[in-house]
Amino acid sequence: MALLQMEESLVNKIENGTVITPKGFKADGIHIGLRHSKKDLGIIFSEVPANSAAVYTQSHFQAAPLLVTQQSIAKEGKLQAVVVNSAIANACTGEKGLEDANEMRKLCANKFSLSEHYVAVASTGVIGEYLNMDLISKGIQELKPGAETASADSFEQAILTTDLVQKNACVQVEIDGKTVTIGGASKGSGMIHPNMATMLGFVTTDAAIDTASLHEALREVTNQSFNQITVDGETSTNDMVLVMANGLAENQPLNSSHPQWDTFKFALKLVSEELAKQIAKDGEGATRLIEVNVCGAESEKDARVISKKIVGSNLVKTAVYGADANWGRIIGAIGHSDAAVDPSKVSVYLKDICLFKEGTPQSFSEEDATKYLQNKTVVFDIFLNIGEGNGTAWGCDLTYDYVKINASYRT
Amino acid sequence: MALLQMEESLVNKIENGTVITPKGFKADGIHIGLRHSKKDLGIIFSEVPANSAAVYTQSHFQAAPLLVTQQSIAKEGKLQAVVVNSAIANACTGEKGLEDANEMRKLCANKFSLSEHYVAVASTGVIGEYLNMDLISKGIQELKPGAETASADSFEQAILTTDLVQKNACVQVEIDGKTVTIGGASKGSGMIHPNMATMLGFVTTDAAIDTASLHEALREVTNQSFNQITVDGETSTNDMVLVMANGLAENQPLNSSHPQWDTFKFALKLVSEELAKQIAKDGEGATRLIEVNVCGAESEKDARVISKKIVGSNLVKTAVYGADANWGRIIGAIGHSDAAVDPSKVSVYLKDICLFKEGTPQSFSEEDATKYLQNKTVVFDIFLNIGEGNGTAWGCDLTYDYVKINASYRT
Repeated sequence: MALLQMEESLVNKIENGTVITPKGFKADGIHIGLRHSKKDLGIIFSEVPANSAAVYTQSHFQAAPLLVTQQSIAKEGKLQAVVVNSAIANACTGEKGLEDANEMRKLCANKFSLSEHYVAVASTGVIGEYLNMDLISKGIQELKPGAETASADSFEQAILTTDLVQKNACVQVEIDGKTVTIGGASKGSGMIHPNMATMLGFVTTDAAIDTASLHEALREVTNQSFNQITVDGETSTNDMVLVMANGLAENQPLNSSHPQWDTFKFALKLVSEELAKQIAKDGEGATRLIEVNVCGAESEKDARVISKKIVGSNLVKTAVYGADANWGRIIGAIGHSDAAVDPSKVSVYLKDICLFKEGTPQSFSEEDATKYLQNKTVVFDIFLNIGEGNGTAWGCDLTYDYVKINASYRT
Repeated sequence: MALLQMEESLVNKIENGTVITPKGFKADGIHIGLRHSKKDLGIIFSEVPANSAAVYTQSHFQAAPLLVTQQSIAKEGKLQAVVVNSAIANACTGEKGLEDANEMRKLCANKFSLSEHYVAVASTGVIGEYLNMDLISKGIQELKPGAETASADSFEQAILTTDLVQKNACVQVEIDGKTVTIGGASKGSGMIHPNMATMLGFVTTDAAIDTASLHEALREVTNQSFNQITVDGETSTNDMVLVMANGLAENQPLNSSHPQWDTFKFALKLVSEELAKQIAKDGEGATRLIEVNVCGAESEKDARVISKKIVGSNLVKTAVYGADANWGRIIGAIGHSDAAVDPSKVSVYLKDICLFKEGTPQSFSEEDATKYLQNKTVVFDIFLNIGEGNGTAWGCDLTYDYVKINASYRT
C-alpha cells in the first residue's frame, strides 16, 4: 500500500484529459446512419506510427474485427489509426463478416494513405447482423481527425451503444524528465451486456516504449482493471483493449529494465482502472458502484478471483440494491471459489463496519450499515489472513431495471 | 438415446410416491416454533439400518450439520434416521454450532434408541444464527414417524424455507424379480438462494446395495441432476443429498457387476432429476423452467459445463423471461466456457425452431419463437458437432420478483 501511495504521488490525474491529450493523437466521431441519430463511426489517429498492443476476448466466438486487428498488429507491432463503428458488432457473421472487416480496414488505410496493417478496426453492437458497407464506406470518407476537445468528445460518443455516459481518463507522469501522457476512452455497460458485444477500451500515450514491453504492461494492467469488472462472468465476442504509444514524449524507451518501469505501469493502471470503473458504474440498470477489496489471499490471483466472485454474485448485487448488509451472501460467494480459504480466519468489513470477524458473526448497527449502503459507491473489504495477495474488483447492483432492459432488449 | 428409452421402459413412475413408499421407511414433520407457524422439524426413519451415502456442498464453509452427518456415515456407512430442521441453517456458527449439531444427533439417537452414528442431521435456513436448542430438544421428543401419506407430506413441508411448493418423486423397477422402490423429497429455490442455505435432497430406497456402490451411484447421478441446476454458480454452505438403502426389497445386492446396475442407476437418476427440476422450477421469482440440452460435445463433462453455463446466464434468463429468442446470448454463454468449441459447427435450436446453424444465423419466425417461449417449460437444444458428449441443465428465468425477493430478503 505504501508503494502504491508513493507511485500515486508521481502521477497527475488530468481532469478533462482524453485520448488526444497525449502528443500527436487526433480523433473524430460522426453519424453515418448505422444508428438512428447518434454518432456511430469514430477514429483515433496518430501522426506517426505508434507501437501498439491489444488484448482480446477469450470467447470462442471472436468477432471479425478482432481477427483483422490481430493481423494488423502481428505484422509490425505498429498502428497509426483505429476505426470503430457502433450499432453492429460484426460478430457471428462468418466469411462475409471477415470480408467486411477487411474492407473497412482497407477503406480507412486508403483514405489516410496508410499501409493496411497500420489500421486496426473495432465494432460494437448487435451480434449476428452484417455491416452496411455502403454507409461504412461513405462514412470513412467523411472522417476528419482533429485535435480539438470536440474531436475527442465526438469519438467518445461514437463508440457507445446502450451506455448512458461517455467514459474517459487521463494521467501524466514524468519519465526521464519528460512529461508522458496516457489517455483513454472506453464503452460498455459493465460487461453484463454480452449481446451488445460489449467492452472496448482505447488507450493512447506519447510514451516511447517498444511493442513487446507495451504488450507486457497492457496484459498485466488489464488483469487488474478491465478483467476485474466481469460482473456476470460473461465475456463478449468483441471485447478488446487497444493501446497505441507513439513515442513523441521522447523519454528513453521504456522496458522492464527502465528505472521508471513501475511508474509507467502504475500510470497505465490508473487510466485502465478509471475506465473500467466507469464501465461498471454505468452497468445496465445500476444505481451503485460496488468495490470489493480482498487482502491477505494466498496469491494475487486468488485475491482477484474471490473479489470478482463476490462482485459477480446476483445475491450480493441484489442485497446492495436493497441496501441490506447481508454478509451471508459474501460468505456464500467466497465459500464456493476455487481459491484457498481458511473459514476460521475470514473477516468481512463494510467500509468501517465489521460484519464478520475471523469466522464469527459480529453484532453491528443495521442502521449504520443500511445508511452506508445507500451511497453511490459501496466498498467491501475482505481479509483472508492467510497470505499476502491483494486484489480488487468492481461491479454494480442488480435492479429491476436490469431485468427490464434485458427482458425486452430486442423488442 | 435408444439406450435411455429402453431403460425408461423398465422404470415405472409412481404418482404420489414419496420417501416412505420404499419398504420400511417412515417419516414425520411437525411445528416446533423455529418458524412462525409452518412446520420446521422433520424426520425420515428406517425400520432397519440402511446403507447410506451422501454428497455435500463444495463450499469452504461447510455447515455444522454436514460435518456431523459425515462423521455418522464414516463410522459404518449406515443410517437409521435423519433429522432435519428448517429456519436456521446452523452455518458459520463456529464451535457452538458444531456442539448444537452434535446435540441434535444425540437427542434423536436417544429418542429412538439408536447408536448416535445411525443418525444424520441436516439444517436449512438463515446463515450465522444459532439453533434454539430448547425448541429442538422438545421437538425431537414429539416426533412420531409414521407410514401414512400424511406423514410424508408433513416431512416434505417441514424441510421447506421460501419454497412455494413441496417436492417429491418416486419410481419402481424390477430387479432380480423383486420390486425395488426409490423415493425422494427435496427443498430449495433453485440454488439461486445460498443465504437460505439451501438445497437438501433425501432419497430412500428398499434396494439391497452396499454402501460403496450406493455412494458411487449417488455421485454419478448427482452430477447429472442436482449439480446441473446451479443457476447462479452459487453453492450454499448446507447443500446435501443423502440416500438411504435398507435392503428390504430383497434383490441380490447391487454393485457394478450386477446385470441390472445400469437400470438401478437410471431409476435413481430419474428420481434425482425429477427432484432437481422441481427445485429449478420453484426458483425465486421464476415463471418458467429452462432446460438446455447440449449434444455432440467433446466429453460429457464439457456438455454439462456448457449447458450449465447457458442456463446460469443472467442474459439468457432475462431473455426467456421476456420471451425473446435472443440466440446471441446463448452464443455468448457458449463462447466463454472453457470447454472445447468449434464456432463454425455450433447449431442452436429452440425446440424445433433453428436459430443458428453451423456458425451462421438463421432466419426464423419471431412470432413462433415468442409463442413457444411463453410455455411454462422451454427447451434449448445445442449441437456442438465435435464429439459424443451429451449433457443437460435446468434453470429458471430471471424476473422482477427475483430482484424484489433478494433485495429485501432480511427485512
